[in-house]
Amino acid sequence: MLDDQHNDNAPEEGDYELDREIFGPVRNALAAEDGPALLAILDPLHAADIADLVEQLPEDERDTFVRLYGDKFDGEVLSELDERLREDVVHAMEPAVLAEAVRVLETDDVVDLIEDLDDPQTEAVLEALDDDDRVVVEQSLSYPEESAGRLMQRELVVAPDHWNVGQTIDFLRSQDDLPEQFYHVILVDPRMRPTGYVTLGRLMGSAREVPLTDITEESFRTIPVLQDEGEVAYAFNQYHLISAPVVDADERLVGVITIDDAMAILDEEHEEDILRLAGVDEESSLSDKIVDTTKRRFPWLAVNLVTSILASLVIAQFDEVIAQFVALAVLMPIVASMGGNAGTQSLTVAVRAIATKDLTSANLWRVIWREAAVGLVNGIIFAVVMGVVGVIWFSTPLLGVVIAVAMVVNLVIAGLAGVIIPVVLDRMDIDPALASGAFVTTVTDVVGFFAFLGLAAVLLI
Amino acid sequence: MLDDQHNDNAPEEGDYELDREIFGPVRNALAAEDGPALLAILDPLHAADIADLVEQLPEDERDTFVRLYGDKFDGEVLSELDERLREDVVHAMEPAVLAEAVRVLETDDVVDLIEDLDDPQTEAVLEALDDDDRVVVEQSLSYPEESAGRLMQRELVVAPDHWNVGQTIDFLRSQDDLPEQFYHVILVDPRMRPTGYVTLGRLMGSAREVPLTDITEESFRTIPVLQDEGEVAYAFNQYHLISAPVVDADERLVGVITIDDAMAILDEEHEEDILRLAGVDEESSLSDKIVDTTKRRFPWLAVNLVTSILASLVIAQFDEVIAQFVALAVLMPIVASMGGNAGTQSLTVAVRAIATKDLTSANLWRVIWREAAVGLVNGIIFAVVMGVVGVIWFSTPLLGVVIAVAMVVNLVIAGLAGVIIPVVLDRMDIDPALASGAFVTTVTDVVGFFAFLGLAAVLLI
Repeated sequence: MLDDQHNDNAPEEGDYELDREIFGPVRNALAAEDGPALLAILDPLHAADIADLVEQLPEDERDTFVRLYGDKFDGEVLSELDERLREDVVHAMEPAVLAEAVRVLETDDVVDLIEDLDDPQTEAVLEALDDDDRVVVEQSLSYPEESAGRLMQRELVVAPDHWNVGQTIDFLRSQDDLPEQFYHVILVDPRMRPTGYVTLGRLMGSAREVPLTDITEESFRTIPVLQDEGEVAYAFNQYHLISAPVVDADERLVGVITIDDAMAILDEEHEEDILRLAGVDEESSLSDKIVDTTKRRFPWLAVNLVTSILASLVIAQFDEVIAQFVALAVLMPIVASMGGNAGTQSLTVAVRAIATKDLTSANLWRVIWREAAVGLVNGIIFAVVMGVVGVIWFSTPLLGVVIAVAMVVNLVIAGLAGVIIPVVLDRMDIDPALASGAFVTTVTDVVGFFAFLGLAAVLLI
Repeated sequence: MLDDQHNDNAPEEGDYELDREIFGPVRNALAAEDGPALLAILDPLHAADIADLVEQLPEDERDTFVRLYGDKFDGEVLSELDERLREDVVHAMEPAVLAEAVRVLETDDVVDLIEDLDDPQTEAVLEALDDDDRVVVEQSLSYPEESAGRLMQRELVVAPDHWNVGQTIDFLRSQDDLPEQFYHVILVDPRMRPTGYVTLGRLMGSAREVPLTDITEESFRTIPVLQDEGEVAYAFNQYHLISAPVVDADERLVGVITIDDAMAILDEEHEEDILRLAGVDEESSLSDKIVDTTKRRFPWLAVNLVTSILASLVIAQFDEVIAQFVALAVLMPIVASMGGNAGTQSLTVAVRAIATKDLTSANLWRVIWREAAVGLVNGIIFAVVMGVVGVIWFSTPLLGVVIAVAMVVNLVIAGLAGVIIPVVLDRMDIDPALASGAFVTTVTDVVGFFAFLGLAAVLLI
């Protein structure tokens, strides 16, 4: 199961890990409070790498960093910082420096930057903006968090849908404030409803007299402004979109979302799912303080404590059987552990399939049947193995039968619970990534101990 | 911990789940072997949605689908299909239909399509291509799997880096075979080494006499052709790239990778990590057969069986203690389970931090210390709770002390193992997502049982 193809450390393939040699000089410059030296080291780095570097510094050195880096702390580095760190850094920045830093950002980046700040900090940033930009930012903030409206940019390039290539090129050439990054010209009808789009490449490659409507992209689709950002990311990935017009309830064009923002959201949503599946609530980062991390880990452990006490209550029902056959205490965790693992496998596949919309009412029953069948087959294999181990270890054939039967029962239940629980949670509008694990392992623990000890009580006594 | 903000089912936000009403008509058309009806239903759908629909059909109906859909089965639908299904579908297609289907694809999509097919199928597809395209595809296939060389497209738009905007626009306008999708013009020196790039938008917005070198993008960076595709996706996400030139060992331009391909890889890598963390090896899909799924789940369960037997061996050392105090058997799974959960939390955060290059030698010791501290704090809280529960439940104060101390010990160890094990595996070039779980839960089971039962043996007897 080792995987040599993913050898990220092979030097010839290049590697984007921050050069470890850079940390020494940076920390020396910080210790010496040597601002110019720090700037010289950081000058060739990308904003994203500078942000990563700040995140990896110890807390006290971070403050020094902010002080020394000072007015070089531009908006782009701020945009790249972890939310929690960003608050600290913004707090440490002088208002004039902060104002200068955000002024260089595109409006969608400003929105992204300030939506996680507290109110006084938000005010400070808004005040720093030009009037025009402030209006745009405030409009974006009027849309719900995590909606397409927060994600979109307002800088648009549109053309009436009755134009031809020549008219469009002449129009573009005559503009002197085109957005720096745009990939499509959006076609609109007289009421500003988008009707299609044309890639710049296609425009460049077509004769002047060709109507725009002849060279529109098939992939065209609009995004409702209130759509959840996770759905937006899904649409970009599913339909290979590069950019998509955002429309209001009247189908009128209000903005555009580009694939780079969708990719960042896809990345965040995945990260969230991975952490939630492991019982880590909310965004978690290595630069968090101990007390924050402890709080974030606590709820899930508390849930787990309750569910494992439940399992213990099941065991307690059989304390007399265990007192007679201590071998039961030795073997019982195996059945529960195998069930927990098989259940986690099923539930992870199911949670992902729900997220990618591959598990629907059309195939639900087939998937449930498949998981039960897989549990049965693996259950039988491990039942035979453990039956033999049980007999050899404790020289009690019936003990082998007990563990074998309990294993089959628990792996089938694990497969069923692994699909049914996430599906039910999803139908109840509860994120299955977040809550399935606790339910599934409770089921496999309780069923595992009950089947094993119950069967033992019947057969061995 | 429920999350209302992620309510994907709210109807007003739109939803990309396949309309469940479409399955009825599709399956009716299949049952009636009514090809025209099937085509009429599918005509408005995107290739990606058709592929999803095929994946969700029962196996026997899939064959009918392939037969009826026949020559409409275009390359794009094939590209979107799951690898395993794709093999079956390609197998069921007539060679002439297959040839027609692949001919419409861009060469990078052909490479993606055939790299997972078996040899005779690959031959059939290659033979269907024009000579020019076949050479390009075969060149791509000569690069290692999962490398930038496999991902890149060969259709390039380049300009000598001494040109100005006017020359470049005139050149582009004079070409009649520009790629349909391109976003940048790549600047090259006389030896075909890329020196920068210019977005089409910037080109359109600049005066004719401006030299290209004045309007190049700061984000420019090249990708080595042998770089791992996961690293490529990381670079796109980290540095907000839209497209990036791919270069050979001599820094010469050989192709270009665009963000849509990088986004697909990012999605795949995340999917792989999520499944591996849950002990599901290799790509897994709901359309897999039962026997394939069973095989794919088996190895991890086998590893888990071995590790849980190890834990049982620890328990067996204390069978006489358990025989005297059956309460130990009732309570011992709680300590192990809490350790397992805490360890999984730590290891998931660590595995993600390694993947995003946020956990490096610069902050490793701080992170290890933090995890131990978090384990200690949560351990103390849960120790107090369980100590009280233990005393009340079994009226034995010393039992409360035993479980409390064991809880603290196991949560600290869980935090340490959760960071140290993935880091060590990563240094050994073993994917930490794949193997960490087994090691960490083995540690927490063994330590949990040993600390709890060992302490009981000392204090209670």
